[in-house]
Order: sequence, then C-alpha cells, then structure tokens
Amino acid sequence: MENEALFQKVSEALLDYIIQNQFKAGDRLPKESELAAMFGVGRSTIREAIRELKGRNILNSRKGSGTYVAQDPGITDDPLGLVFIEDKQKLVSDMLDMRMWLEPWIAAKAALYATEEDIRHLHELADIIEAQILAGENHQEKDIEFHVYIAKCSKNLLAPLIVPILQQSIALFIDVTNRALGQETIETHRALLRGIETHDVFAAHSAATLHLGYNKAIIETQQRAVPGSAEQ
Amino acid sequence: MENEALFQKVSEALLDYIIQNQFKAGDRLPKESELAAMFGVGRSTIREAIRELKGRNILNSRKGSGTYVAQDPGITDDPLGLVFIEDKQKLVSDMLDMRMWLEPWIAAKAALYATEEDIRHLHELADIIEAQILAGENHQEKDIEFHVYIAKCSKNLLAPLIVPILQQSIALFIDVTNRALGQETIETHRALLRGIETHDVFAAHSAATLHLGYNKAIIETQQRAVPGSAEQ
Repeated sequence: MENEALFQKVSEALLDYIIQNQFKAGDRLPKESELAAMFGVGRSTIREAIRELKGRNILNSRKGSGTYVAQDPGITDDPLGLVFIEDKQKLVSDMLDMRMWLEPWIAAKAALYATEEDIRHLHELADIIEAQILAGENHQEKDIEFHVYIAKCSKNLLAPLIVPILQQSIALFIDVTNRALGQETIETHRALLRGIETHDVFAAHSAATLHLGYNKAIIETQQRAVPGSAEQ
Repeated sequence: MENEALFQKVSEALLDYIIQNQFKAGDRLPKESELAAMFGVGRSTIREAIRELKGRNILNSRKGSGTYVAQDPGITDDPLGLVFIEDKQKLVSDMLDMRMWLEPWIAAKAALYATEEDIRHLHELADIIEAQILAGENHQEKDIEFHVYIAKCSKNLLAPLIVPILQQSIALFIDVTNRALGQETIETHRALLRGIETHDVFAAHSAATLHLGYNKAIIETQQRAVPGSAEQ
C-alpha cells in the first residue's frame, strides 16, 4: 500500500512514454530492466505497472518473448463494465434502443464513404451469413462482423469502437434458430448493402432502421414469452 | 512469462468471485492471504491479479486499509482508448456527430422518465452553469455534469456510460470564453430543461438537436479558423 502513489506515477509515466514515442499495436517494448533504469525504479515496480497496463489492454505478452502494445490498445473486452449490470433484460432492450439511434446514421455515413473494396468485403460477409442462415447454422459471429464492418465504412472514428459494445450482450439473448428472424436478416442485410453500394444515404438509413426495428420486436416478443429468461 | 496462463485463470476467477458474490462499489475484498488460500495460489499471483483488476478500474486501494470494489467498476478513465487516436480534430468532429445522433433521443427519454427530484437537480445545475457563463467563468465541468445527468434521467442503462465518453475530448477544444456560445448555451439549456420538466418528448428532442447543432457549427468554425489547432 505504501508504494501506491509511486506506483501510480510510474504507471502513468509508462503510458506517456508509449504514446509520446508513438508505439503502435504489435510494437515491442524495451526490456523490464531497461524500463526500470529509464524510470529510475525497481523491476518489481515496472512489472506491476506493466501488469496494470495489461489490465487496460494497452500491453500484452507473448510467452518468452517480451511485452507488446496490444491490438486496439486501451479497449478491454468489456469497456463499459456491463458485466456488473444485473438487469440483463433491460440492458438488452436499452442496447437495442442505442442501436436504433446510432446505426441508421452510421449506415448512411457508410453509404457516403464506403470504398469499392469495402463493398466487396461486405458482400463476402453477407454471402457467408446468408449461407449460414439457410443451412440453419449459427450466424452470430459473422453478423457482428458485418455490422462492425459497416461501422468502419462510416469512417467515423468512434463508430467501430462503440458498435461492438452494443452487439455483445445481444448475442446471448437472440434465438438464432428463429426462422422469421433469419429470413428478415437475409432481406434487410441485402437492402442495407444495396443502399451502401449505390451510395444512397436514405436507402441505407431506412434499411438499418427496418432491420433493427424488426430485431427489437422479435427479441421483445421472445422476452415476453419466457419471462425472466434473460436472467439465466 | 511462464505463469501467464495460470495468472489469466486466477484473474478471471477473482472477477467471477466478485460478480457471483454480488460485491458492490465500495465493498471491501477479503485479505490477500485469504484470497490466496481460496484460489490455491501464492500471494504474489493474487497481488498481480488485483493489480490487473485495478488497471480495469474494477478494484482500488485505500492506503493501509485493503482492496475495494471501485466506483463504476470496469470503466476506466479512457474506456475506448481515445488517447491512441492521433487525428484529434477528426475525433472531435466525429464525437459531435455521435452526440447529434444519440443525445436528442436521450433527452426525449429523459422527458418521459425524469422524476420530480431529477428535475430539481437539473434546475440546480442549469442555474450554476448560467451564473458561471454570466460571470465569464469556465462552466465546462458543470456542463458535462448536466448532460450526464440528463443521460441518467433517461433511465437507459447505457446512456450514462456512453455520454461521458462523448464529452471528454470536446472539453479540450471548445473555447469556453466564446460569447455567442455562452448565450446559446443558456438559452438551449433552458429549452431542454423546459422540454424535460413538461414531459414533452418532442420539445426535449428538438432542443437537444438545436443545442448540439449550434455547438458543432461553432466548434467547426473555430477549427477552420486555426487549422491544426486541435492537434496541439
């Protein structure tokens, strides 16, 4: 406990060092001993500072080969601490509201800014999802990838950081075997993609609205059908 | 490095323990020695696991008195790692877009769900902000508090987690001494509050739209006037 103040300073100094020297994802940090000398502290203090920055997903380790800057540095698996929210049913409903507010505009921006290569990649994802739905397979993972990729196409720097957060819990509560939802997903994904590839901001916006509105209706019907099911 | 896999397990097990036992913000954790016995590992492993959970703002320490569950557990100061985004000017512009998409709906929800006590608190904040603006003082901190409190009034569980993130960088780039912006803030805050207290969802929505649209226009004019100023 005594060293907490010193520790906090070293931890912040190490973060500053990483930012000031423009370390990028995958870059390797100097050795613990070098960092210890650089900051004028013991190796155990440096080790603890590295551990804290690992907790924040700023750094990570590969066995036997040192410490590296993490992918998407600074974003943990659960950046908003949603695991601590007890009422999961309300959380899912509130997430869907957030998606309804954000994603139509993100789709509209994607219609403005998606490149030819972006559109090719979206087609690939849509084809895979369609095949999975028709085969009765779980398409959740690719579905999230599709929506996160649209967020990237919007070129809004925050969209690809916020959209994945709004997807995560929903995955737990959608019955992916729901036939109506599968058919709807195929059709609204196609409409969404058509809006983006023809650079029609209005078509993309309304396709996203339709897709999310339908999803929300289906999920809320499922929640009503099995009260408390979301808490399990 | 050798112990990285064990360490990850212990860290996850400790998080599970906190969630399963429904520890709340401010609750004190058992001593390191007890936790070490509980998980069947050494005290240094427990100490490192605690350090990682501190990095994620799940735990914190008070000098000489043990380890506690943090306020807003799981949310770090910079949960989206925005410090790693280099183009701060685009970041601010993209944040304002996000606010334009989200906050009018959050205000509309606040108009539906704000309690009498919520409305009293919003009035107090608006009065303080108004006095600060008229006195030529910096009203940034209270301004953020006002918008975050509206997010709480919406009763959407995600809104009070996401709205503060969208405020943080903006604070760096607004010239709070701008006279036109001060006058506009007084008027649109009043309109926003009037919408919320009369439970008029449309009035709250359009007041928020107006407020953010005006802010965006002023900030973008400032950015154009001093090219690259946001990077300093």
